[in-house]
Amino acid sequence: MQVEEILGRIARDLERLKQFTATPGDGCTRLPFTKEARQAVDFLGELMRDAGMEVAEDAAGNVIGTLKGTNPELPCVMMGSHYDSVINGGDYDGIAGVICAIEVARQLKESGMQLKRNFVAVGFCDEEGMRFGTGYFGSGAMLGNRDPEYCKNFKDTDGISIYDAMKDYGLDPEKIRDAAWKKGSIGYFLEAHIEQGPVLDAENIEIGLVDCIVGIQRYMVTVHGRSDHAGTTPMDMRMDAVDAATKVISKIPDWAREKADGTVATVGYIKTTPGGMNIVAEKVEFTVDIRSKNNDNINDIAHRIRAALDRETNAIGGSYEMDTKLVITPVNLSEEMLKIMEESCKAHAYSYKYLPSGAGHDSLEIGQVIPTVMVFVPSKDGRSHCPVEFTRYSDLAKATVIMTELAQDLLNRD
Amino acid sequence: MQVEEILGRIARDLERLKQFTATPGDGCTRLPFTKEARQAVDFLGELMRDAGMEVAEDAAGNVIGTLKGTNPELPCVMMGSHYDSVINGGDYDGIAGVICAIEVARQLKESGMQLKRNFVAVGFCDEEGMRFGTGYFGSGAMLGNRDPEYCKNFKDTDGISIYDAMKDYGLDPEKIRDAAWKKGSIGYFLEAHIEQGPVLDAENIEIGLVDCIVGIQRYMVTVHGRSDHAGTTPMDMRMDAVDAATKVISKIPDWAREKADGTVATVGYIKTTPGGMNIVAEKVEFTVDIRSKNNDNINDIAHRIRAALDRETNAIGGSYEMDTKLVITPVNLSEEMLKIMEESCKAHAYSYKYLPSGAGHDSLEIGQVIPTVMVFVPSKDGRSHCPVEFTRYSDLAKATVIMTELAQDLLNRD
Repeated sequence: MQVEEILGRIARDLERLKQFTATPGDGCTRLPFTKEARQAVDFLGELMRDAGMEVAEDAAGNVIGTLKGTNPELPCVMMGSHYDSVINGGDYDGIAGVICAIEVARQLKESGMQLKRNFVAVGFCDEEGMRFGTGYFGSGAMLGNRDPEYCKNFKDTDGISIYDAMKDYGLDPEKIRDAAWKKGSIGYFLEAHIEQGPVLDAENIEIGLVDCIVGIQRYMVTVHGRSDHAGTTPMDMRMDAVDAATKVISKIPDWAREKADGTVATVGYIKTTPGGMNIVAEKVEFTVDIRSKNNDNINDIAHRIRAALDRETNAIGGSYEMDTKLVITPVNLSEEMLKIMEESCKAHAYSYKYLPSGAGHDSLEIGQVIPTVMVFVPSKDGRSHCPVEFTRYSDLAKATVIMTELAQDLLNRD
Repeated sequence: MQVEEILGRIARDLERLKQFTATPGDGCTRLPFTKEARQAVDFLGELMRDAGMEVAEDAAGNVIGTLKGTNPELPCVMMGSHYDSVINGGDYDGIAGVICAIEVARQLKESGMQLKRNFVAVGFCDEEGMRFGTGYFGSGAMLGNRDPEYCKNFKDTDGISIYDAMKDYGLDPEKIRDAAWKKGSIGYFLEAHIEQGPVLDAENIEIGLVDCIVGIQRYMVTVHGRSDHAGTTPMDMRMDAVDAATKVISKIPDWAREKADGTVATVGYIKTTPGGMNIVAEKVEFTVDIRSKNNDNINDIAHRIRAALDRETNAIGGSYEMDTKLVITPVNLSEEMLKIMEESCKAHAYSYKYLPSGAGHDSLEIGQVIPTVMVFVPSKDGRSHCPVEFTRYSDLAKATVIMTELAQDLLNRD
């Protein structure tokens, strides 16, 4: 199979999927349990059937195609990604990985090779969590981590719960546990995804072999000082929350750089209260997001932030809180499967690079319990979650070539 | 005259004035050209008449009482402050200084001393600028710095201009220039005011001799970086506006402390855009307010901020703007008059301290063209512009004693 032929099929399918958006002309808006989600799921089902797969939609809204092997009782090889998008997102994030899974099924079928295990292509529902402020809904349900209570707890901005949205969509949220797969029934998980970062594009590399999904810790920090008149209060009588907070914030990026192993740290939000230009701030709130493939580095930076907050709030006579918002430990992906794909890259002369994933994915949820690999394809200028998101069809095609070869290896294991 | 008797009169008058607020029970709200302003002006006029003064209201809404001297053609000695307040402000800021001026007139009258010059007590209109976003309206008009165009240009939040508010109030804005005094007709200006800062209260000092009204420079700084995914963008590929901005902001208070001469610098407002916890900020806006009695120190700090912005935005490959919002040069108050009051403090065994005023006052407007002095009285905990603002009547009484003695000296000069 020539790459040109493969990329033609991928292009045809993704161009069709671009139509299933609530914001035509302004990027892809395909929220879970909406008309656009239904259109995408129906179309993906058609493609799966055309590829020779049995198609089902599970209780969580995942669309699942199965290419039967000769020993279907063996743990399957599953490949997929998500079909939902953020609001005004791009046409590749998630959905390109679903199309790659179907494309791998096509290539497996066309190879004519006898396969022992089932190959399962999945389009997951609601990875982004955009509508209900959650995430990994379909992959979580597949692992048995979602129940009717969960569905009732989260609501969209119109006050509609996941529970009610599912009912309107034609699913029974009371049966959400039916979406769970039996333990041991999934042998391997593969995901192709756009990088959503600038590394591959900047270095002009075709294939990213993802060795790790980074761990994340997120904090909301509040520094308390005292509000005073900016003109009449001498420097030594102030409790300036901005003074203390910025002395901490300004060091956080340096601590990440110091690790020199891809560790990143970001303060994206700062708010001063009361925020008057002639008033010493009584309060500064700021967020911290730290990510690394090395959990010790995350813990070390969080520790340094606490120590600096101790020191600087002490210096002004103030106080602080550092609330934990998220803790995810790094997930190492399967070295063995990465090695197989590296050999394929070499054989096809595709340029490749090992790199971590700095963003979460369905593989983050699944990789905690099942041997998992991810392949990244370049994102132009690293842009994602916006209408200008762009990935070359030829890079997606090359990803399917090496992933098909990996799948062939895995599918014939006893 | 005993301090006890004086403080009784001051207490009586200020307690009555507390009633003229639009927010009873929640501090003083006495905006210019309102019912409460009219009540205050009428009451101040009564008090001036009772003190033996001729009373007039000028074209700018200032209320003016004149105690005639034997040579009324000599430049007068004027004393006063403002009768307006901020919204939910305190019962002392401004109005206490007007009552002190009337009290000085009473003591001059009671002394029975023959006085050559006129003593003029003034309640100024709209020093705070709260309603129309301006300030120093009455004192500015007295100096000839306000005209009908100015009155049309500024509007309150209901869209009512100074011009229309004046007409509703019974003043003719077309005659605003009539409020200007002839050049040379005011010989000296005296103002008593609450400190609005913590210094006198913290050091338990009764009288603040204000040697300077500090200069102010205000800036709005915008640092431009680039918005990126906080997880997928390596540290060395970011243009993090927060990284660059906080490396500058965190040093600004230290530069002020270094001057060790009362220079203050404040960043009271910081805003990050887009402000997502998982997005590298593309823009940080922050305010800078620098005040000092030494203009070179203000210029030096502003210069260091620019140099640091150059360096830090260069380091991330970003850019910045630093927009000037306000430039006021320091005003030195009359050393000669301060010396006379210092001798009075010593004679009466009042504790005193020289200090600068970090806030603007009518004296800032007037002190640029007429020999001026200010006396500060302690503000409990330095609190001001809020309902808990508090100043002891006994401290106000002591201020009137030394200011009466100064006035006697000045009034008998040829």
